[in-house]
Amino acid sequence: MTTLLVINGNTTQAITDRVAAVARGFAAPGTAIKAVTAETGPRVIATRTENLLGGQSVLTLAARHHAGCDAAIIAVASDTGLRATREALSIPVTGMTEAALLTACALGDGFGFLAIGRRGAGLYREVIASHGLAARMAAFKAIDLPPEAFLSPSGAAEPILAAVVELAEAGADTAIIGGAAFAGMAAALGGRAPIPILDSIGCAVRLAESLAAMAPGKPRVGGYAVLPPRDLVDVDPALSALFKPASEEAK
Amino acid sequence: MTTLLVINGNTTQAITDRVAAVARGFAAPGTAIKAVTAETGPRVIATRTENLLGGQSVLTLAARHHAGCDAAIIAVASDTGLRATREALSIPVTGMTEAALLTACALGDGFGFLAIGRRGAGLYREVIASHGLAARMAAFKAIDLPPEAFLSPSGAAEPILAAVVELAEAGADTAIIGGAAFAGMAAALGGRAPIPILDSIGCAVRLAESLAAMAPGKPRVGGYAVLPPRDLVDVDPALSALFKPASEEAK
Amino acid sequence: MTTLLVINGNTTQAITDRVAAVARGFAAPGTAIKAVTAETGPRVIATRTENLLGGQSVLTLAARHHAGCDAAIIAVASDTGLRATREALSIPVTGMTEAALLTACALGDGFGFLAIGRRGAGLYREVIASHGLAARMAAFKAIDLPPEAFLSPSGAAEPILAAVVELAEAGADTAIIGGAAFAGMAAALGGRAPIPILDSIGCAVRLAESLAAMAPGKPRVGGYAVLPPRDLVDVDPALSALFKPASEEAK
Amino acid sequence: MTTLLVINGNTTQAITDRVAAVARGFAAPGTAIKAVTAETGPRVIATRTENLLGGQSVLTLAARHHAGCDAAIIAVASDTGLRATREALSIPVTGMTEAALLTACALGDGFGFLAIGRRGAGLYREVIASHGLAARMAAFKAIDLPPEAFLSPSGAAEPILAAVVELAEAGADTAIIGGAAFAGMAAALGGRAPIPILDSIGCAVRLAESLAAMAPGKPRVGGYAVLPPRDLVDVDPALSALFKPASEEAK
Amino acid sequence: MTTLLVINGNTTQAITDRVAAVARGFAAPGTAIKAVTAETGPRVIATRTENLLGGQSVLTLAARHHAGCDAAIIAVASDTGLRATREALSIPVTGMTEAALLTACALGDGFGFLAIGRRGAGLYREVIASHGLAARMAAFKAIDLPPEAFLSPSGAAEPILAAVVELAEAGADTAIIGGAAFAGMAAALGGRAPIPILDSIGCAVRLAESLAAMAPGKPRVGGYAVLPPRDLVDVDPALSALFKPASEEAK
Amino acid sequence: MTTLLVINGNTTQAITDRVAAVARGFAAPGTAIKAVTAETGPRVIATRTENLLGGQSVLTLAARHHAGCDAAIIAVASDTGLRATREALSIPVTGMTEAALLTACALGDGFGFLAIGRRGAGLYREVIASHGLAARMAAFKAIDLPPEAFLSPSGAAEPILAAVVELAEAGADTAIIGGAAFAGMAAALGGRAPIPILDSIGCAVRLAESLAAMAPGKPRVGGYAVLPPRDLVDVDPALSALFKPASEEAK
Repeated sequence: MTTLLVINGNTTQAITDRVAAVARGFAAPGTAIKAVTAETGPRVIATRTENLLGGQSVLTLAARHHAGCDAAIIAVASDTGLRATREALSIPVTGMTEAALLTACALGDGFGFLAIGRRGAGLYREVIASHGLAARMAAFKAIDLPPEAFLSPSGAAEPILAAVVELAEAGADTAIIGGAAFAGMAAALGGRAPIPILDSIGCAVRLAESLAAMAPGKPRVGGYAVLPPRDLVDVDPALSALFKPASEEAK
Repeated sequence: MTTLLVINGNTTQAITDRVAAVARGFAAPGTAIKAVTAETGPRVIATRTENLLGGQSVLTLAARHHAGCDAAIIAVASDTGLRATREALSIPVTGMTEAALLTACALGDGFGFLAIGRRGAGLYREVIASHGLAARMAAFKAIDLPPEAFLSPSGAAEPILAAVVELAEAGADTAIIGGAAFAGMAAALGGRAPIPILDSIGCAVRLAESLAAMAPGKPRVGGYAVLPPRDLVDVDPALSALFKPASEEAK
Repeated sequence: MTTLLVINGNTTQAITDRVAAVARGFAAPGTAIKAVTAETGPRVIATRTENLLGGQSVLTLAARHHAGCDAAIIAVASDTGLRATREALSIPVTGMTEAALLTACALGDGFGFLAIGRRGAGLYREVIASHGLAARMAAFKAIDLPPEAFLSPSGAAEPILAAVVELAEAGADTAIIGGAAFAGMAAALGGRAPIPILDSIGCAVRLAESLAAMAPGKPRVGGYAVLPPRDLVDVDPALSALFKPASEEAK
Repeated sequence: MTTLLVINGNTTQAITDRVAAVARGFAAPGTAIKAVTAETGPRVIATRTENLLGGQSVLTLAARHHAGCDAAIIAVASDTGLRATREALSIPVTGMTEAALLTACALGDGFGFLAIGRRGAGLYREVIASHGLAARMAAFKAIDLPPEAFLSPSGAAEPILAAVVELAEAGADTAIIGGAAFAGMAAALGGRAPIPILDSIGCAVRLAESLAAMAPGKPRVGGYAVLPPRDLVDVDPALSALFKPASEEAK
Repeated sequence: MTTLLVINGNTTQAITDRVAAVARGFAAPGTAIKAVTAETGPRVIATRTENLLGGQSVLTLAARHHAGCDAAIIAVASDTGLRATREALSIPVTGMTEAALLTACALGDGFGFLAIGRRGAGLYREVIASHGLAARMAAFKAIDLPPEAFLSPSGAAEPILAAVVELAEAGADTAIIGGAAFAGMAAALGGRAPIPILDSIGCAVRLAESLAAMAPGKPRVGGYAVLPPRDLVDVDPALSALFKPASEEAK
Repeated sequence: MTTLLVINGNTTQAITDRVAAVARGFAAPGTAIKAVTAETGPRVIATRTENLLGGQSVLTLAARHHAGCDAAIIAVASDTGLRATREALSIPVTGMTEAALLTACALGDGFGFLAIGRRGAGLYREVIASHGLAARMAAFKAIDLPPEAFLSPSGAAEPILAAVVELAEAGADTAIIGGAAFAGMAAALGGRAPIPILDSIGCAVRLAESLAAMAPGKPRVGGYAVLPPRDLVDVDPALSALFKPASEEAK
């Protein structure tokens, strides 16, 4: 029995519900999905400022809910707070876009990335570059959709399909859609796209299951070792508890 | 029920046996491992010339044995023949080093790579670069081991552990060992290494299971679409059968 | 009369005091320094987790105190929250390490970077890479210092000087020290180093003055345009006020 | 008297004939061209799968025919089997695209590459990247031509010229055509192109002559030293003979 | 009191006058601008050949006029002779494009570059790459203008504005115009552009003031240390005087 | 009959003599070597300042002496003035280091570079990067030699051999020595080095012969087309003559 913690750094419960449903559809038998939603902060992270605010939400949710889980997934397309959460927890952590990018690398040479929201194009490009995978990107496209598309994505199917066709024509072997709200879109489009559309949540579920099964443990040295003792000022006790107690300092 | 085809491009049955045993240890319940061994060619691929010869073996094994399988793993550390096999088959295909590299990217910032055999160092560097992941490599080390270590790897544990310690000191968050013969070494070293050692075969099994479950299908355009009709001269019929029949050309 | 907002994302007032004093020493006549300190969060940001927590502090301080200022400086060596703060404010924003890196590029070919704290080495490397300047780095070195060195840096002079000598021998034309606590160290070492040591705070003050004088204004398109209207849940009103009122949406 | 071995990894004799004729046209007085054709495998290498199969053909031809030659040229536009053949032989070996790329670097800043066959675009991009020269590529274009164009290239002149004009407009200083079948096309187009079109076979002949004249010999260490003794299973004796006899192992 | 030496490597006095006027407009109170013009060589540097010839002019002007100055600016958009002049002088030296590029990095993610003169596009690309900043370039565009536009730039305003709009649409956060003759154009376009247009001369003045205030001094080792004693044949005595007297060799 | 113009941008005739002798040793029968020496400027280019001054010498020599030649070689290890001379002349032009780097790429994976003179290390790194070949460099080493070694290189044989051994141990497949004064050293070391040492002058002679034989002609567009008409102030008439007469402007 594996339990995956799915962290929605947005405060929109509808996105959590959609993500959780899609995650359950991809999960192996015996995998439980525990999905949590940010209590404060942005409704839909789409700017750098919201991404920063969402980072604190992601880490706080991780701190409060990771107990008993085997791996965690950050269900925000900008992989909000990924490296800090990976450092802070003892279980494996992945981001939905990270997982999709790594999966795409195993299915073809160059992936195509579709950013929903032109404003966030630069943020997505930075996320892809931060994973060291910019050279594997064959095509990038950003489109704007009306706000309601984020709550009822089915209406977005046609413009998304058209954009994926463009990515394919530009040489992409697979397509990744940036946006947690669009979980499940790949399946919804069925076989209509000329190249496989990867469901980022699906990729993350499978990757998290794999990492949980491997249980690699924490490194004992370097930037991902257990957090050292720290005395933080006035933060959520769950966050403070991520750091090793000072009494263990000499160990 | 998922069946993974594990292709050993070397002609050494002992390596196949070891790889298959390790693969079964990592496989999820319900996953069957079908391991096959090259009938001709190099015993242990360790030079570019052997890597080229092994490529034909890998593709031939893939062509003969993929029927009924859900995904394939190339169990040679230089990912011999990977892109051609990916193009030729309709099921997902991954390489053991590819899988380890992608997994390492999800566990830390920079991986360390340990090449067994200094002669092959350049080939491994080329493999890593061909995956576009050279920038994620924090440290690289090549060591020589006596030939018998490839058949009885337990004697190699101490020099490998020492090398992994060096990789960690150079900033690596995880370690990958190049060499199919060393499948299982990560487990054998237990918790003695300061950073997680990824078992490349284990990574490949988990990735192949994930890809099989996603069943992304073939792209209809680009370099990984189904092979077009071709008339090859005097090749193994299984290889010819990888190409679409000429009668389907007009479709 | 120019006013620079200097934001210490750490909760340690002593660091703010030191940074402010150094900033005043570098400032042109007619430049006022307004230094603020985080009220909650880490005392000294040195891990990715603290860096994430500090991001919210930086943005909150920026939101509360930017009124009446002409430019802002983030006085944390990991440039915590830089891009989000740049997006959110209408005045120019720079980070102390960003400013030092850009200045170093105008003084030689390759800079050397000295990370104080080996644990944070990966975070610093990521910061440098995120500025697209990894190729300009001639040498990188991380050293550990006792915790008291962060509060009384003079004792750190000798190990820092020794490390700078190593950076110079490795080909660096200039040296940058990672750590707000070490503001002023360049001057303290006087002419003893073989290559110029850039004071990151000094670089940031001069760059911020320049940007304030240029007053480039906000772009009207792209990822650094004024933030769109957003309805955030339960956040500091100063943060909400960074977003354009919904009533302006149609404008 | 210099003899160059020209290896056609395709089984199409007409391509060998064309390549040999063009090679003779470029060769210095006193250079003999010995052109050989694959006996098995693909007729025209245009996919990754055919490229893999062609690799074995190239190496086998090299092994059988290199005696008495001073340098070898691989006359396949994807430089099929280049690194392995370079490792295996004691004479210099170059590929036709490699030679054209290196020559282009000495004639301008950025080259343009014209791939004949859109399916193979990714393979050509990989070849260029594997030579570390992607940053020197100013423009890349892939066009489809009818199959008969590969046997009677003169009909392809106009579409090729049009594509070269596009490469020039995109900033290319020179143009390279991917496809052994198009040897001689540069001359056929005469002075009609706005930028020099490099004949890849011509470049390879001149480079091979130069390398033969330099006679650099084999390195005694590293990945291109003489192949060590190996016991291969059931391979062409010419291939086995590429490896040092086991009796020389202790030397 | 700070004095900046502004070096026009072109022989066109009108460009010097324009550049000096713009420089004075950007300079802080108390900064004097000393502008000098090449006596020989190209009128407007626009080809690589002119750029080479202009290099000698720049260095000669620097050698003759640097005494009493606190920093120097090379007022040629290809940063002609920058590294040599930096090496040769004891005061800081920057180039107008270098300064604009570094400033752009502090104002957004990706800059746009507008080359005036399509012939020089390759030279500008090389300049940007030589600063290691190609990865920060979001968009590049080259346009031709009639020769008279270089002497009376106001007529160039509309085509330049149109090109900047294209750069913004391609994702640039800021725009840089290549061409000393276009100093002041940013201000002339007022707020009409969708993204800030950086005045390269303005950026260089502010950067030079900052570097002058920091007075980092010469490194004592490496490629930017004081020039060693040298005996040059028949060069301008001012150039010879850049080298340390032989009598100081043993020091 | 092919004539190669060998341009020594230094004013040291002894270097010209040595280079010419080595060039003649590598030249094909029927190739004449016309070697010319700078009349003014640095004796041995070893700093960026000398490199700039040498650029004018190289271009002037090229302008005066190219008539009747079929290709030109710049015999300065920093490829002084290469791109401008390539643009200015109608015959092919290569640099000695450029030629060695391109040749090395055809002989192995990674080359090693030995800089004679630690001061010039940065300049050599920039030259290699400007050719886009930094990623092909396996190892770089800079050593100092006494000044007399530049005039009587035989005494430098042992330290150079020791450095080449280090390059080989670091993974280089070939070695390149930076310094025109060391032409012929490769042959002088005979078979003592573990990897081939490329003679840069020899590589340049062979490459220049090849380019001369190909006679690619000038591009009609772009940055290497014939220089446009220009009115230069007070320059050597040979330099002015490099530009198309104004009367041809309308053609």
